[in-house]
Formats: sequence, structure tokens, C-alpha cells
Amino acid sequence: MVNWFRRQTQRVVVPRLHSRNEALANVSKVELAELTPELLPFLAQAAYLQLTVFETLSTVVTDAPTARSKEAVSRVAGFSLDKQHRLVVELQRIKGTDAGSAMQPYAERIDAYRDRIRGATWPEALACAYVTAGLLDDFFRRVAVGLPSDASRRVLEIFDSEDGESILVDELRALIEADPKLASPLALWGRRLVGDTLLIVRSALALPADGHSEEERLEPVFTELIAAHTRRMDALGLTA
Amino acid sequence: MVNWFRRQTQRVVVPRLHSRNEALANVSKVELAELTPELLPFLAQAAYLQLTVFETLSTVVTDAPTARSKEAVSRVAGFSLDKQHRLVVELQRIKGTDAGSAMQPYAERIDAYRDRIRGATWPEALACAYVTAGLLDDFFRRVAVGLPSDASRRVLEIFDSEDGESILVDELRALIEADPKLASPLALWGRRLVGDTLLIVRSALALPADGHSEEERLEPVFTELIAAHTRRMDALGLTA
Repeated sequence: MVNWFRRQTQRVVVPRLHSRNEALANVSKVELAELTPELLPFLAQAAYLQLTVFETLSTVVTDAPTARSKEAVSRVAGFSLDKQHRLVVELQRIKGTDAGSAMQPYAERIDAYRDRIRGATWPEALACAYVTAGLLDDFFRRVAVGLPSDASRRVLEIFDSEDGESILVDELRALIEADPKLASPLALWGRRLVGDTLLIVRSALALPADGHSEEERLEPVFTELIAAHTRRMDALGLTA
Repeated sequence: MVNWFRRQTQRVVVPRLHSRNEALANVSKVELAELTPELLPFLAQAAYLQLTVFETLSTVVTDAPTARSKEAVSRVAGFSLDKQHRLVVELQRIKGTDAGSAMQPYAERIDAYRDRIRGATWPEALACAYVTAGLLDDFFRRVAVGLPSDASRRVLEIFDSEDGESILVDELRALIEADPKLASPLALWGRRLVGDTLLIVRSALALPADGHSEEERLEPVFTELIAAHTRRMDALGLTA
């Protein structure tokens, strides 16, 4: 498993490894649901990130090489937009909340993320939609478990709804089969996407000031997300 | 009223005006529903043009200046995608029809139209979504009257469904109010859009070879479309 946060912080040197591993052992029982933020920031960030997924998918629709692919991917964009709409409805259930104002504080940072992951080609944009939608759904599904029970149940229903992932897998497989030289650059692109996506979601978590560094706390809880990502890349025959 | 087709064909010279007006009188009872094509090309073109409307709206979502605007316009994109999906479902009711293959013959021409009307700024893209969606809906609603009765009824229901137009009007009015200098360039942009859109839809019509030129036949039937367009521009306080 790749340690994304080690690469980010560059704080790991040999003499520290022992005490660091002890610290990890202490927090190894922590799950994402224990780092769940308040309902409002949760929904605002989930809804705005879902708009980003939709925006990525809509460029995939626009640039699709055939009417058939365009039609297929437009269905996935529709699922994504439905999900986003349902998250906004949840946001509006919180008394006195205007969805636009609630999302605005996160807009600049998330728009910058969207621009970084856009992809320069149609296969990259398609892979981006597949990888980032999968990671974000996995992340928010796990974090939603820690929400108040009523909201938790409804939000989990939203994230468990049809997402059209199999349509994206079919399109990507067909691309790679038609041009096997795509496999290696798409595998590298996938790593870039998982790095950028985990960086954007880490800031959505409520990290307690308990003496553990963010790195120590986040590394174990992100293990499952990266395992699920690896399975998604496997489904394309790509190395994660 | 502007005569769009006169401008296109540049065939109108003074000595011909008299006989041309007589010819117009002869066809003045013709309505769009008398020029309705077969069900398959109707649905294929309507569905692919609806994808274009969605694609325009999705760039408006992506480039929206605030989370509130983004959220508002994303609802309109959702309505557009629902409509497109329902048209594809109708297409698939025609035995042996694959929606992608049915739309493919129109893709290149309609994609070129989409690229021409894209708009260079957010206000232009927003005005494009408003003007072209309105014109296309009006056009297909009138032409659908000439389809076989069952299909006609279902297709009219699709085109009469919620389209979010008032959301676009609110956004455009707010823009023009905040920056009145936008009014004049947006009015000109609207003329460009109506010209390009009527050019793309004219080729969807079944024009009988009855001795009347296309110009003579189309000019009167497009009158209502241009009147409705003028009302849409009026709603923004803009000259059509």
C-alpha cells in the first residue's frame, strides 16, 4: 500500500520509524466515522464535491467520440446530478440554511481541485470521473456513519443509490482494449487522482487535538479507501 | 421581424419581390406540423440537440461565479438531461433502434453548431442556454404535433415538462441589472443565436418538392418561433 501522507509531509526518516509505528498502533482502531464533522459542513462539502463530479462527467459527455458514448455517459452525469440534488435537499432541511451560502466557503478550494484533476484527454477525463466518484462515494459513505442517526440513514441511502459506475467501467475497458498503450499512462494518472482526492477530503474531517499528528491519525483510516481504489483500478486491468 | 432566410440566401432583389410575396401568400397556411419528418429522425435529432442544450448548461454550471448560481443552474441542467433521457426512451420504443446509432448521423453537424454558439463569457453562455433551449423546445413542440398521435402525445408531454427557464431568466436579469453595459452585446448575441439555431432546425424538417423554394416555405412557419424568441428577449429587457 502506498503511504500518500508520507509522500506529502516528507517527515518520515529512519530514526523516527519506531515511535511512529507505536503511535499508529495507538490509533489503529480509529475509523473514519469517528472523525465525522458536523452535519452542515459534511453536507455542504459532499454536495459541492458532487457538483465537481458532475462537472467532470459533463466534460466527458461533451468530448465523447461517438453519439453512443455520449448517450451512455450522459446517464452517469444524470445519476451524479440526482445525488447532488438529494444532498442539497438534506442541506435545506437544516433550519435557516441556504445551500449556496453553505457551499460557498468550500468553492475556491474545491474548484482548484477540479481544475487539477480535469485531464488533458478524453480517456484521462473518463478515468478521472470513474476514480474520483468512486473514492468520494466511499469516503462520504464511511464518514456518514458518524452523523446523527436520521441524517445518517438518509445520506447513506443517497450514496448507495445507482451511480452508473459500470457504464464508466465498460467505456474505459473498451478504450484500453482498443489501445493497450493507454494502460500505463492511465495507471499513473490514477495515482495522481487518488493523491489529489485524498488531499481534498482530509480537510473535510474533524480531527481532534489529541496529540496525534494528522498523519498518524489519517493513515490507518485511509487504508480501506485505498484498498477500494485498488479494486477499481484492477477492474480495468490497471495497477493502482 | 427579421427575415433570417433572406439574409442567408441573399436571393431577394427588388424585381422578384412581387412574385415572391404571391408565393408566400400561397403557402401562408402551412404550419410546422405539416413539415414533420418521420418519427425516428425527429426523435434522433431532438434527442441529440437536447444533449447540446445540456452540454451548454453544464459549461454554465462549471463557470458559474458563485456556489448559489452553480447550484441554481445545475437544476436546469438536470431538467434538460431528464428531457433528453425521455426522448431516448421514445427512440428505443421504435423496434430495432439503437439510440446511439440513430443519433450518430446528426452528430457532426450538431456538434459544429454547439461549438459556434458556445459563447466566450459566462453571460454569453447563460444567454445561449436560455435562447437556444427556448427556441428548440418551441420548434420541436410545434413539429411534434404532426407525429403519429400516440407518439405525438408522449413527445408533447416531454416538451411541456419543467424546463427551469425562470431560473435562467432570474440569473440573466440579475447579471444585466448589476452591469447594464451587458444589455447591448447580449442583444446582438441573441440575434446570432437565433440565426444559428433556426439554421440547424430547418434541416430537421421534411420539405416537400412542390415547386416552392425552401425560403418561401420556411419563412412563414418560422414567424411564430421568432415572435416567441422576441418575447423571451423582452423578458430580459433586451431587443430581439
